[in-house]
Amino acid sequence: MKAAVLREIGEPLAIEEAPVPRPGPGEALLRVRACGIDGTDLKLLDGFGYVPQLPFIMGHELAGEVVECGADVAGFAAGDRVVAYNFVTCGSCVYCRRSRDQLCLDMRGIVGILGVPGGYADYVCLPEQQLIRLPDGVSFEDGATCCDAGMTALHAVDRADVSIGDCVLVIGVGGVGSVATQILAASGVEVIAVDTDAAKESWARAQGAESFLSLEADALVAEALRRSAGLGVDRVIDVVGLEDTMRAGFAALRRGGRMVIVGYTPDSLPLSGKELAQNEKEVLGTRAGRRDDLRTCLGLFGAGKLRSIVRATYPLQHVNEALDALRGGVIGRIVLSFD
Amino acid sequence: MKAAVLREIGEPLAIEEAPVPRPGPGEALLRVRACGIDGTDLKLLDGFGYVPQLPFIMGHELAGEVVECGADVAGFAAGDRVVAYNFVTCGSCVYCRRSRDQLCLDMRGIVGILGVPGGYADYVCLPEQQLIRLPDGVSFEDGATCCDAGMTALHAVDRADVSIGDCVLVIGVGGVGSVATQILAASGVEVIAVDTDAAKESWARAQGAESFLSLEADALVAEALRRSAGLGVDRVIDVVGLEDTMRAGFAALRRGGRMVIVGYTPDSLPLSGKELAQNEKEVLGTRAGRRDDLRTCLGLFGAGKLRSIVRATYPLQHVNEALDALRGGVIGRIVLSFD
Amino acid sequence: MKAAVLREIGEPLAIEEAPVPRPGPGEALLRVRACGIDGTDLKLLDGFGYVPQLPFIMGHELAGEVVECGADVAGFAAGDRVVAYNFVTCGSCVYCRRSRDQLCLDMRGIVGILGVPGGYADYVCLPEQQLIRLPDGVSFEDGATCCDAGMTALHAVDRADVSIGDCVLVIGVGGVGSVATQILAASGVEVIAVDTDAAKESWARAQGAESFLSLEADALVAEALRRSAGLGVDRVIDVVGLEDTMRAGFAALRRGGRMVIVGYTPDSLPLSGKELAQNEKEVLGTRAGRRDDLRTCLGLFGAGKLRSIVRATYPLQHVNEALDALRGGVIGRIVLSFD
Amino acid sequence: MKAAVLREIGEPLAIEEAPVPRPGPGEALLRVRACGIDGTDLKLLDGFGYVPQLPFIMGHELAGEVVECGADVAGFAAGDRVVAYNFVTCGSCVYCRRSRDQLCLDMRGIVGILGVPGGYADYVCLPEQQLIRLPDGVSFEDGATCCDAGMTALHAVDRADVSIGDCVLVIGVGGVGSVATQILAASGVEVIAVDTDAAKESWARAQGAESFLSLEADALVAEALRRSAGLGVDRVIDVVGLEDTMRAGFAALRRGGRMVIVGYTPDSLPLSGKELAQNEKEVLGTRAGRRDDLRTCLGLFGAGKLRSIVRATYPLQHVNEALDALRGGVIGRIVLSFD
Repeated sequence: MKAAVLREIGEPLAIEEAPVPRPGPGEALLRVRACGIDGTDLKLLDGFGYVPQLPFIMGHELAGEVVECGADVAGFAAGDRVVAYNFVTCGSCVYCRRSRDQLCLDMRGIVGILGVPGGYADYVCLPEQQLIRLPDGVSFEDGATCCDAGMTALHAVDRADVSIGDCVLVIGVGGVGSVATQILAASGVEVIAVDTDAAKESWARAQGAESFLSLEADALVAEALRRSAGLGVDRVIDVVGLEDTMRAGFAALRRGGRMVIVGYTPDSLPLSGKELAQNEKEVLGTRAGRRDDLRTCLGLFGAGKLRSIVRATYPLQHVNEALDALRGGVIGRIVLSFD
Repeated sequence: MKAAVLREIGEPLAIEEAPVPRPGPGEALLRVRACGIDGTDLKLLDGFGYVPQLPFIMGHELAGEVVECGADVAGFAAGDRVVAYNFVTCGSCVYCRRSRDQLCLDMRGIVGILGVPGGYADYVCLPEQQLIRLPDGVSFEDGATCCDAGMTALHAVDRADVSIGDCVLVIGVGGVGSVATQILAASGVEVIAVDTDAAKESWARAQGAESFLSLEADALVAEALRRSAGLGVDRVIDVVGLEDTMRAGFAALRRGGRMVIVGYTPDSLPLSGKELAQNEKEVLGTRAGRRDDLRTCLGLFGAGKLRSIVRATYPLQHVNEALDALRGGVIGRIVLSFD
Repeated sequence: MKAAVLREIGEPLAIEEAPVPRPGPGEALLRVRACGIDGTDLKLLDGFGYVPQLPFIMGHELAGEVVECGADVAGFAAGDRVVAYNFVTCGSCVYCRRSRDQLCLDMRGIVGILGVPGGYADYVCLPEQQLIRLPDGVSFEDGATCCDAGMTALHAVDRADVSIGDCVLVIGVGGVGSVATQILAASGVEVIAVDTDAAKESWARAQGAESFLSLEADALVAEALRRSAGLGVDRVIDVVGLEDTMRAGFAALRRGGRMVIVGYTPDSLPLSGKELAQNEKEVLGTRAGRRDDLRTCLGLFGAGKLRSIVRATYPLQHVNEALDALRGGVIGRIVLSFD
Repeated sequence: MKAAVLREIGEPLAIEEAPVPRPGPGEALLRVRACGIDGTDLKLLDGFGYVPQLPFIMGHELAGEVVECGADVAGFAAGDRVVAYNFVTCGSCVYCRRSRDQLCLDMRGIVGILGVPGGYADYVCLPEQQLIRLPDGVSFEDGATCCDAGMTALHAVDRADVSIGDCVLVIGVGGVGSVATQILAASGVEVIAVDTDAAKESWARAQGAESFLSLEADALVAEALRRSAGLGVDRVIDVVGLEDTMRAGFAALRRGGRMVIVGYTPDSLPLSGKELAQNEKEVLGTRAGRRDDLRTCLGLFGAGKLRSIVRATYPLQHVNEALDALRGGVIGRIVLSFD
């Protein structure tokens, strides 16, 4: 099979021939049909954040078809269309017991990110419990995007705890921001989308944003206050996580409002205890999604409540071009497709 | 009547003769029977934070007896034992409608703090809607402490959203920290009390703390982690609000844990987006209490679930000594008492 | 002025000349511009449920214009467009303090229903605290329907605690059911609308229902299960409250599902302890709405997230015809309009 | 080994010699050290409710020591002290994904109740995922009682959603009612315990109840109202589930109050839609506990926040006497003990 292998930090991926892996007990072999690429892949390439043991096959947004099952696989069979939940959890720690899978204390690996080879290859072997059936009518490409962008957005919105009629600032209209905007709009929420790239305006509006701002932090706060009659917005979802975006988001928040940080950088937010306490503001972190968020996200695609964010596809052998394109800035999601 | 009047920032209060105020329509005249003093009073004296128009009569933790009612007062009569809810709210803004009284957008004043003279005097006139009946068996002194320390602690614990069996770090064992410790202990929560003043240990334990730490920030984090098997504590309630306490509290928190900031200083917490997001931590502000918190707090005293935190009383004419004592550091609450 | 007066239970309303009332202190005089009529009016006519002292002027869904303010009215002025919140609450009981206005323990009256004359007249006097400003762009007619149908629907949906992607059975597509369907659909929820009147199908679909059922109870349960892959629906909102509808709703519920009863009759639901406990089902009552629900509902109209349910208007002098029409069965809301 | 075998409905258990089972892959062999007996055992004997395939070994509250592990068991080793979570869940349905284990749609069995032999024997084989470590300092006997009575009580209290200072009626002071009373009391809640057996008063008070009532339903309601100043109690937890207890509990509830049904019989509650809706009451079912509830319950024992409810122990060969004693009415829990 063909695989794109990360052999050295900072170098392009090597497109190589590799043996098709064999499913062990409890594992299924998938033919990969689609694999999204996103900012985490760039971080892996750059050696920032997660550091997998090299060589490594990346690809953490993958959908495919089961072609063979190892011993003891009871829930799936050849021909099943599936996606992969990335976090290989212990299943028994306090977080697993409480369905906070992605906070697992004894994580065994993260598909395509840490320890477990991912979808930048024609085939991949995965433990059965990582697999979730792709609903009829949802394409492999859209299913793949649910595995990170989709479930992360859904979980972030859940953490934001919105009500119909709320006004929410979504900072950063990439993959997660796009799906978050769609979910919020479908929930009766007014979305003000924010991005430094003014070219994203029509895309953001197509996702359901009622307005779009491309402003410096101070002007952003002033405008957010103006639109909310001076009160501030109900919620902020920051998918960027720079000091400037977090500062602006926090300042734009109404009393009792909540900011959810989903994207992060090495930056910190200087959080005034007085501002926080006197206004009963709330700042929450959110990470990826729970197993159930992924299923729910697939269901929303199946029910037509979410729409595709895929705007470009590349074949596996052009994965380095795709990564370069992403680094240069894209609108919507890039997905690797396989014949 | 005698009154202690703030005539100039930075100067002692002037003990003066003043005319007894007359209750207007909808107002009641109270004979003050007890009035707590706390850190907010020191901030007023120092000109930090709220800046009332001078001269001003402070005293925001007050209990007394109704001696006369103005026109249109239907719910109270001479002889009623009452305490005062401090926030004079508009009653119709979005926060008032949602019972978040202390976030009122159109606050008319704060008894003893801003615009409305307080309890550092023999008599005080207050709008009827500020009054809450003191349950039988609760002393004027204890009722007074409910008006700030008590309701603030109750609301902070509510914001912390604890469950039986949780482990909570309470930073700062003054008035609010003492009542918070009592409430948490009565809720089946393990409290680790923290204070720089090692002399507070036996007091903290008497409030219900299972352990007491008097440590530098780094050692505090290490110890909190050690006691929670490396996981971190479930909740932190920071009544101090220095950069060091907020940093230590945040670092001591387990994944998914929540820190509630109730005390504040001019300090900020440098909040790492990565730490927050990857661990789904939560940082919430809390301010004083809602009208309903004050009533609930009085009810808990009445039911014997809370115990007095008053350790010293001073007559009104010695209020400056009481304020000096507070500034020097005290254990438990100081209350002005009146004959 | 003209007024429609209930002089005797079971008799048509008498259209009479009456003196324009004078606003006392804290009251405003309104010129009524629209007043909805609904099932509660029929119950009043029939002497079932609330029994006001006769003669009485009904009309509890009213919108109008302030024409004169009594002494001490600070928040409104002549010319203001307003609607009336019906429940004249005490403002200080435990339910008022917790923003559960409609559960007030010391209710002083209900506009147009109990003790306080309502909107079946050219003019009405109301306490200032009952008034809520009508947002620009919302008509008097639509504002009026928010005062009962709208806020009741919003509150019922809030009690139902839905999530995007849920499937909800709404039983009864009258005023409340219509707005509930709109709110649910705008929240990303799939609505199965149910009504005995098959003619309501296109109306229900226009409100946002994805499907419509007009079936006997048993067939209804079977169909609801079929559509939910045998699991049952996530939520049921029963606006009818007959034994048959409550039984069917309860049986159609999935494990852990919740049924909210908003409409009621003299019927009871025979609730099996075993069915309830083993499946962790939930049955909640809901009553009208809170003051804040009414404001939120008006806001949703103003933001274009809710659409008019008014299908017919009658002048005041034809109010008896309007009531007869309602009794005969109508689609959408009937509103009295005034020139 | 010795085992007590249910060979025929309605007959005493047969005390027999049986071969020690062998642990298959993923299973552990336990030496049983304690096994509680409760009302579900009586239902099994009587053929009411669950109907296992005969012959069957009952015993669903079991604690023991691991003596041997089958292949692929990674988390446990010989010598480990453990208890068993009863529900053998699929791990992947919507309820499993959301940590509502006991509502699993594809339950494989229930230890000692359905399909999986339980603890009425010297040894038992169980899948590894059923095992939970017994904390140091918690006896096998107390650990056993956590497996049903304990976790059921904890989950019921969680469903009841209490706050400090609430007043809760606990109907039925058997195993579940006793632990529920302890948990509520430790959470700062006032418990009114109710039981037909007046002899349970001192036991109920020892569990933390502030008062005890042994009354007919009507008198019970009157008394509950009297104690709550006519308002009604905040919560009811009904562990009995007779029509009379459910009726009384519902009638005793304040506006906005919640009744949780945990015990059930063939009875139904005739639930008035009007009473429910107008007072916004809530009726919720609750079933056993989640995996996490069992762990939390063990932790509460370990932390000294719960105390033993075991009042009598019998050796395995006298299990029929123990069952007869239970049927006759006992105070506290009976546990089989093993040498």
